[in-house]
Amino acid sequence: MKTRLQDSWNAGRPGINSWISSAAPVVAEFTGKAGFDSITIDMQHGLNDYQIAVSMLQALSTSDATPMVRVPWLEPGIVMKSLDAGALGIICPMVNTKSDAERLVSWAKYAPAGSRSFGPTRAQFVYGADYPTKANDSIILLAMAETAQALENIESIVSTEGLTGIYIGPSDLALSMGYTPKLDQEEPAVVEAIGHILASCRKAGVRCGIHCLEPAYARKMLDRGFDLVTLGSDLRLYVSACADALSKTRGES
Amino acid sequence: MKTRLQDSWNAGRPGINSWISSAAPVVAEFTGKAGFDSITIDMQHGLNDYQIAVSMLQALSTSDATPMVRVPWLEPGIVMKSLDAGALGIICPMVNTKSDAERLVSWAKYAPAGSRSFGPTRAQFVYGADYPTKANDSIILLAMAETAQALENIESIVSTEGLTGIYIGPSDLALSMGYTPKLDQEEPAVVEAIGHILASCRKAGVRCGIHCLEPAYARKMLDRGFDLVTLGSDLRLYVSACADALSKTRGES
Amino acid sequence: MKTRLQDSWNAGRPGINSWISSAAPVVAEFTGKAGFDSITIDMQHGLNDYQIAVSMLQALSTSDATPMVRVPWLEPGIVMKSLDAGALGIICPMVNTKSDAERLVSWAKYAPAGSRSFGPTRAQFVYGADYPTKANDSIILLAMAETAQALENIESIVSTEGLTGIYIGPSDLALSMGYTPKLDQEEPAVVEAIGHILASCRKAGVRCGIHCLEPAYARKMLDRGFDLVTLGSDLRLYVSACADALSKTRGES
Amino acid sequence: MKTRLQDSWNAGRPGINSWISSAAPVVAEFTGKAGFDSITIDMQHGLNDYQIAVSMLQALSTSDATPMVRVPWLEPGIVMKSLDAGALGIICPMVNTKSDAERLVSWAKYAPAGSRSFGPTRAQFVYGADYPTKANDSIILLAMAETAQALENIESIVSTEGLTGIYIGPSDLALSMGYTPKLDQEEPAVVEAIGHILASCRKAGVRCGIHCLEPAYARKMLDRGFDLVTLGSDLRLYVSACADALSKTRGES
Amino acid sequence: MKTRLQDSWNAGRPGINSWISSAAPVVAEFTGKAGFDSITIDMQHGLNDYQIAVSMLQALSTSDATPMVRVPWLEPGIVMKSLDAGALGIICPMVNTKSDAERLVSWAKYAPAGSRSFGPTRAQFVYGADYPTKANDSIILLAMAETAQALENIESIVSTEGLTGIYIGPSDLALSMGYTPKLDQEEPAVVEAIGHILASCRKAGVRCGIHCLEPAYARKMLDRGFDLVTLGSDLRLYVSACADALSKTRGES
Amino acid sequence: MKTRLQDSWNAGRPGINSWISSAAPVVAEFTGKAGFDSITIDMQHGLNDYQIAVSMLQALSTSDATPMVRVPWLEPGIVMKSLDAGALGIICPMVNTKSDAERLVSWAKYAPAGSRSFGPTRAQFVYGADYPTKANDSIILLAMAETAQALENIESIVSTEGLTGIYIGPSDLALSMGYTPKLDQEEPAVVEAIGHILASCRKAGVRCGIHCLEPAYARKMLDRGFDLVTLGSDLRLYVSACADALSKTRGES
Repeated sequence: MKTRLQDSWNAGRPGINSWISSAAPVVAEFTGKAGFDSITIDMQHGLNDYQIAVSMLQALSTSDATPMVRVPWLEPGIVMKSLDAGALGIICPMVNTKSDAERLVSWAKYAPAGSRSFGPTRAQFVYGADYPTKANDSIILLAMAETAQALENIESIVSTEGLTGIYIGPSDLALSMGYTPKLDQEEPAVVEAIGHILASCRKAGVRCGIHCLEPAYARKMLDRGFDLVTLGSDLRLYVSACADALSKTRGES
Repeated sequence: MKTRLQDSWNAGRPGINSWISSAAPVVAEFTGKAGFDSITIDMQHGLNDYQIAVSMLQALSTSDATPMVRVPWLEPGIVMKSLDAGALGIICPMVNTKSDAERLVSWAKYAPAGSRSFGPTRAQFVYGADYPTKANDSIILLAMAETAQALENIESIVSTEGLTGIYIGPSDLALSMGYTPKLDQEEPAVVEAIGHILASCRKAGVRCGIHCLEPAYARKMLDRGFDLVTLGSDLRLYVSACADALSKTRGES
Repeated sequence: MKTRLQDSWNAGRPGINSWISSAAPVVAEFTGKAGFDSITIDMQHGLNDYQIAVSMLQALSTSDATPMVRVPWLEPGIVMKSLDAGALGIICPMVNTKSDAERLVSWAKYAPAGSRSFGPTRAQFVYGADYPTKANDSIILLAMAETAQALENIESIVSTEGLTGIYIGPSDLALSMGYTPKLDQEEPAVVEAIGHILASCRKAGVRCGIHCLEPAYARKMLDRGFDLVTLGSDLRLYVSACADALSKTRGES
Repeated sequence: MKTRLQDSWNAGRPGINSWISSAAPVVAEFTGKAGFDSITIDMQHGLNDYQIAVSMLQALSTSDATPMVRVPWLEPGIVMKSLDAGALGIICPMVNTKSDAERLVSWAKYAPAGSRSFGPTRAQFVYGADYPTKANDSIILLAMAETAQALENIESIVSTEGLTGIYIGPSDLALSMGYTPKLDQEEPAVVEAIGHILASCRKAGVRCGIHCLEPAYARKMLDRGFDLVTLGSDLRLYVSACADALSKTRGES
Repeated sequence: MKTRLQDSWNAGRPGINSWISSAAPVVAEFTGKAGFDSITIDMQHGLNDYQIAVSMLQALSTSDATPMVRVPWLEPGIVMKSLDAGALGIICPMVNTKSDAERLVSWAKYAPAGSRSFGPTRAQFVYGADYPTKANDSIILLAMAETAQALENIESIVSTEGLTGIYIGPSDLALSMGYTPKLDQEEPAVVEAIGHILASCRKAGVRCGIHCLEPAYARKMLDRGFDLVTLGSDLRLYVSACADALSKTRGES
Repeated sequence: MKTRLQDSWNAGRPGINSWISSAAPVVAEFTGKAGFDSITIDMQHGLNDYQIAVSMLQALSTSDATPMVRVPWLEPGIVMKSLDAGALGIICPMVNTKSDAERLVSWAKYAPAGSRSFGPTRAQFVYGADYPTKANDSIILLAMAETAQALENIESIVSTEGLTGIYIGPSDLALSMGYTPKLDQEEPAVVEAIGHILASCRKAGVRCGIHCLEPAYARKMLDRGFDLVTLGSDLRLYVSACADALSKTRGES
């Protein structure tokens, strides 16, 4: 099992996560050796579906980063298919209630902890014969808190048995609270909400991650105590690198 | 934003829609310049899934036709993924109640009008930085009325806030009413039902479209006041063209 | 229509089923001529999604084996898409109640027997113009009984109008009952549960199939009266064949 | 073996060929049942490469039309790969000399008739164990005469042992002779050249085919004695069908 | 036709080129709007083949950058297929003699200037009906000078009728001269060779481009008079951006 | 670098090779852990092209087996692309003369040993920064001796500087000598020819491999002194395993 992120956490260090939107197994493979603690294949807003995710998980085989999937929605089929294909973490969007979180946990854990259907075709092949007995304890389950409703229910959500923690989606959270949807929020009300979620996680003893854009903001979040920060996405990093290189070549910067 | 269909409607003209079933981005690309007002990628009965739809949306980039997707089912994940990938219209099958229609609208609109999750990865890239503020007003949402139940509930369905209109599926409607499932219906009871739905749309001030097969029937529907007619599908047009060309070459016609 | 499995059953013979997990249309094609009575494309634990399944169904065109799909979950979109693409059987996981079974039947049958949406794009093309009238009677619908809950509800499940029968998933059944999840169960309690399900099917006059691993165990199940046995999967057969050939070449066996 | 075209020829009837440019296995599959005598996957000017061709050949499995491939160039690798994948005919562009034709024949026939490498992986699987002994006699080999040089060398080209015949590319032939490149030529000098090639084939006792666009022109070519006529391509037929349907729906025609 | 690079040159400005290695149409699409004058799909050392290149050319449709392809080798099939698919420039590796350059030109131009086979399936569709008459003059043909042999023959190579110019591959050139293969050469002998090639181009009145890595080096090459500089590749830019962002987030820089 | 095969050879042990024909990255991945010393992706008779081979090489990343490619033909483009993508061995069909062998070596080695173009995009990424300096010595180059002509020239072929050895293709060799093309030859003249090739390799101090079908025959070849034996192919092993399992299940064996 690839447990670089879990190992970091156990050693008291936070993790830095990358985000794959590009539907490109080659890009995933190159990301796999860039030094991130985990790599998340985004099947919600990213341009990826399941079959591409399988190719990416294969391309990530030699990476030591923990491979995770953000599923498109709180739906049992894709949660289980992602795990069977080798994802060792699930980030689930729009978890607004404890009941939502419980369903996520149930679908991702084998009985008696949950109701995940047995058949880890690729996972067992690549992680070994003892995968079935290790899976329940090793797989990371992060519920996205990204609505006003989730904010309201945060205490009960974080109390969900088996949930690893919360992953904050600042754009949706802001939008839901009536503000402009964007990352690296400085809007006081949103910042406060983020702080409240983090505090609730701390109190409950669960992990808390947040999606960031700029390294400086991510750095700040780490300093504030977050367990996981994500740096934009492959496409955002690349587009920004293109603009920067073009500008320098033109002598503009 | 590609708003050829919307522009036609605003100018008081109906639109002619094409229908892609073939899982072929090249076919989608060639359709894109054929002169249709909109192009619908059918992910329900067509042989397409999400990843093919992304390739088609890319291949349709230079077309001015409004790109739409018929989703496989009233399900939040695929509605949102289709929009994020650049679809500017959603046709949703089997909308049988006002509650169904409300869920469709909710998943397709950003707060406060709905609960669409924020992350228009490709849509914002291709339609511009102001996509988030324009999306709610620009995206076409058509609920398929195609069952006896929908017929019964049509008045409440068309009253759904935010719904652009109705798209009639004559095959399913006929089947549900006990008749042979086929397009270009002449069965009196079905024709009457279609007329009733159209009238309900007119009364509510929303759009009404219908799936047709033969141009002559589509022409008749336009004359009857429909806002949108679809001409069979890429596969139907092609198979028919093959038969016609073969027959002529053999000297049979 | 390819009704080799149905024909076998009608002639009083059980069927032997193969299982495709490999996301490989070429493998599906070669399986198609191996002599199986049916071939199931596994979209749940197998590494396949819809678009690969379409390619497999095309590659299976010349096979006389009945093509089936195990869907990822009891979900209407994929059940209908699989049938429209040409599957002539659906194996549905985790059917735990009669209500689950009824939904499966409803989604897979045209009105008035159910609510399947009409548009058999590829199915009608390959099976002929009379597909719509034959589909309801020809398509095999197997509900997976694989939890303690299903075991409890088995009598009501098998009484579901329109259901062809039950397909037992021994791994999940064992896991749900507190035992090690594996095929070819010898655990007395699980063996008894399997026997109970088989007996319930016999009593209700519906088919009963079971997923097996080793031919000897499958043989035993056929002798015990099962209507359908599956032999592991393409990947399991292949991996085992590799090990065997390597061992022989090394002179170890 | 699918020998509908060969059977037609043996029965004294010419064949009608279709042409696949669209990189769409679904389109190929639907073409397979449209009634053509042969179906050619165009890997030269069509948007297809080898892997798509394999999928198309699988999708064409149930068609009785003879499956052929137009290779991108007179190159041994792709000629042999196409045959191994199941093509039963090769149309080769730009065959300008007898030496070119001899190389084509050599690469497509097993020793002692040629030097085709042995390994008909899919071909033997789908056509049976006797494929190796039947292949040399069954496979159609058509050399494209489409340059002034080929015109000059036509007599020696058609005398090539093992060559089935000539396939005329009117666009390239016209271009090479200094005229506008297009199908359905009426330019006297080109028409005369075409007639000369046909006459040379007749004299040598080999087949002669020609790429056409409109059914009327193809009909004329059949009347003139051609053994094979092609009707444009899938994309041309489809684009034309779209234009026609749109025009009729708009009431313009 | 997209002639941004040609337009820049005609206006006396050099161009900045991007380089796609990643086999990712989405990455190509995002590159298309980054501001480059041209975008080259690398089919030699990049992880792309023809079918991916077609998808990329479709994804680049709305970009105004000139789309080019670096072919894997001086081979007629792929040169022509790339042009038919819509490439408006060809960069050809390992052109070591004038005869090599003449073959490249011949394969890329229609008669009487060359022997390109006629059938611009996608190119004519997307660039318009006059593509055939404009193609010979519009398409950019760059021969790679990247060996000691090419260096020796540079004067005769640049005199090739119809060749747009030279594209220098510094890694191969250095390797062939006995030095370490890398970009952004500072090795005096290699720098001198590069200068000699540039001077030869200037003298012959043809364009000269060079593959660079760092913006600063590319800037220097522009200042030295190069007509085209390439900035590494999509993968190099991305990997570098990942390292930079990680380092900043960790507070290391 | 993965040098399991090379390491075996250096330790005085022969290797057992597997053969992938199925165009299935998942099958390649599972093969990667089956225990073979090397895995060859067959791009000649197998149903694979370059893009599939890239996916397979990614899927093989965690395997310690040496990844090799059988190229479709002695052609520079695909030899170099395969190496750049990460193949660490090339098996080249139809090497009939020393000149053929020299071209193979030249294309696969960097200057001054050869003329391989520099740009190991994926190879350097996965094998490390010192790949360029290690590649010439590490990469296995096997020329297929499989014609009467090669047999005649075998002494000069094996003397080619830089060639690792010979790989015998018994089917083609037999066919070329006038016998039935099949593996596991017992035909005396072919057996003698095979013995002669092996002896020539021994004398020249180069490796000698042979394509086998049955483990018993492969065992015999190892005992006879071959350095490498291949066990049929993935498809042959699988089809045989299906037949065996079916037969056992039916109680026939």
